[in-house]
Amino acid sequence: MQENGYKPGLEGVVAAETRLSHVDGQRGELIIAGQRVEALAPQASFEAVVFLLWNGRFPTPSEEAEFVADLASRRQLPAATMQLLTAVAPQQTPPMDALRMAAATLDLDSPTDNRALATTLLARMPTIVAAYDRLRHGQQPIPPDPALGHAANYLQMLDGKRPSAARSRALETYLNTVVDHSLNASTFTARVIIATQSDMVSAIVGAIGALKGPLHGGAPGPALDMVFEIGTLDRAEPYLRQKLEAGERLMGFGHRVYKVRDPRAEVLAIAAEHLFEADGDKRLYELVKGVEKTAVSLLAEYKPGRNLQTNVEFYTALLLNGIGLETALFTPTFAIGRTAGWIAHCFEQLENGRLIRPSARYVGAYPTVNEGTISR
Amino acid sequence: MQENGYKPGLEGVVAAETRLSHVDGQRGELIIAGQRVEALAPQASFEAVVFLLWNGRFPTPSEEAEFVADLASRRQLPAATMQLLTAVAPQQTPPMDALRMAAATLDLDSPTDNRALATTLLARMPTIVAAYDRLRHGQQPIPPDPALGHAANYLQMLDGKRPSAARSRALETYLNTVVDHSLNASTFTARVIIATQSDMVSAIVGAIGALKGPLHGGAPGPALDMVFEIGTLDRAEPYLRQKLEAGERLMGFGHRVYKVRDPRAEVLAIAAEHLFEADGDKRLYELVKGVEKTAVSLLAEYKPGRNLQTNVEFYTALLLNGIGLETALFTPTFAIGRTAGWIAHCFEQLENGRLIRPSARYVGAYPTVNEGTISR
Repeated sequence: MQENGYKPGLEGVVAAETRLSHVDGQRGELIIAGQRVEALAPQASFEAVVFLLWNGRFPTPSEEAEFVADLASRRQLPAATMQLLTAVAPQQTPPMDALRMAAATLDLDSPTDNRALATTLLARMPTIVAAYDRLRHGQQPIPPDPALGHAANYLQMLDGKRPSAARSRALETYLNTVVDHSLNASTFTARVIIATQSDMVSAIVGAIGALKGPLHGGAPGPALDMVFEIGTLDRAEPYLRQKLEAGERLMGFGHRVYKVRDPRAEVLAIAAEHLFEADGDKRLYELVKGVEKTAVSLLAEYKPGRNLQTNVEFYTALLLNGIGLETALFTPTFAIGRTAGWIAHCFEQLENGRLIRPSARYVGAYPTVNEGTISR
Repeated sequence: MQENGYKPGLEGVVAAETRLSHVDGQRGELIIAGQRVEALAPQASFEAVVFLLWNGRFPTPSEEAEFVADLASRRQLPAATMQLLTAVAPQQTPPMDALRMAAATLDLDSPTDNRALATTLLARMPTIVAAYDRLRHGQQPIPPDPALGHAANYLQMLDGKRPSAARSRALETYLNTVVDHSLNASTFTARVIIATQSDMVSAIVGAIGALKGPLHGGAPGPALDMVFEIGTLDRAEPYLRQKLEAGERLMGFGHRVYKVRDPRAEVLAIAAEHLFEADGDKRLYELVKGVEKTAVSLLAEYKPGRNLQTNVEFYTALLLNGIGLETALFTPTFAIGRTAGWIAHCFEQLENGRLIRPSARYVGAYPTVNEGTISR
């Protein structure tokens, strides 16, 4: 066993081989199961993308229809899960905490077969998020509608309205765009947990806990808040300049891996353009595009050489806001998409079969007295 | 960013610096916050060991008394948590799943201050395990008793009887022995989650999920089952020889890190000896010692060079059985002790402040067609 020296954050250490996705941060390229995100996300149904990740190939039309129906049939929550959400809503438990709590109960009536359990888990994530969102606003949950696909049903469970094709497509494109992204912190968490041969629910609950962190998925609101604060395009430059002069960070820019524009930002920007066109009001979209352009050029001026580009959060906020989701739902909706990727990584890790157990370097004290005596 | 090649299981990769514990697998040495486990575990109270891990020094007598009282005052479960345990008990949800479900709800009425939240979390773990154990057997939970320490109160919540000093001491020694063990899979999970700046509850819930896995803490029963199956010492050699001839693994022997006898096995063996002496019946203890001796010598014969030695599970099973715990409670009781270590690692990781995000090597397909087209 060779000690390779301390790698803070494990940066650059290869912890897994994967067929699921590939991020090239220098070229700004994201491949999901053999497909460019730019081609896959806006064209395929969410269910087809999940099938692709879980099986390594696209479904045939009849396989896709079967998977859509199977997923739709598993959305109902166990009674204990719904009771828990009802109990925690009055104290205004944050939605991601409620999602973690409820997801932790999801194997109550589930099969032991991992494929079936995975499908049930994926099917129930939107039900938890939507039911809790309504409970927290003092409303009754809306039962899932098996006639609708994964994305459209989620929207209908949130507000009770049959969503337009444009809204459903926009959400589907978002879910596809964030479905997998190599070894991010939550996906790595899921792999570490499942590698002990623990269960799928434990792995997904751990991943939700990691996604909740502000350094990972937990802070997608501030980018849009900043745009709202700017209000009109003529105010963008003075506003952003003041922030940068004060040494503040601009939310929605910069990524640990991408050194060019995050390819997901482009996919989401195009999806937002389509959505806002269908709506007939492109003002917010134009404002966001203008703020982005100003921000990127000011960042180049104030942080030369850092190459801070638009990340996925910036257009996530615009798109999800356009779909009609509150900021509090952004990270839970991210989790709904990413669950499919977490599960795919669990399947892959289970094939590999090896415990993930790095070393630590001890930098503490050593005993100064004889064996058997406590040294104080 | 340099790619260092794929490290399956991250073996030998240093992922953290820690002052909390040090494992020397070649020398069979375990240091916990500057103390040898052999000295610390049987002598200190569990509360003193927790204080040591969380503060880097032993408490003064008045600090220890204060911490004992503080911990004791936080044991009561939120109503929603107790309701959840009551709801899942009739379906015989396994105890580790119930622990994960209930732990996931523990920030319901907790302070936002991390120190206070950590103390509440630690305080409530035995309450969850004991309450669920009673509910699952159709009994009413027994309320915590603030007059008793952490270990003694857990035993009283399980069976309603005031535990003898010998039982409490034996459990305390066990909890101290397993309180921390460098970067095992569950501790690493907790660090990966908290490194996203997520919350302590999410980190501990993820760690419980990892501990549940059979490759980590999830299979401590089989070692003792084997001893019971052997029954009398004269049957040990033929029984073990038959297993080894059939190519079966002997449970309770071998460890990924320790190449000599796990120092924890010795601490637990001595604790078991004291406990069984106090009981007046040392037959099971003598049988276990005899089986160990036979197994180690047969392993040397059948697996030469592998150096398979007794691991912590072997004497855990004997000691916890002697304390009166059912096999189903072994892993949850492990979790009760290890929670203090998980929390200490969370504090340490939060000081460091860096996201843990290794890389993956993509071994999947690349798009074969033009950008914007799905390749099928």
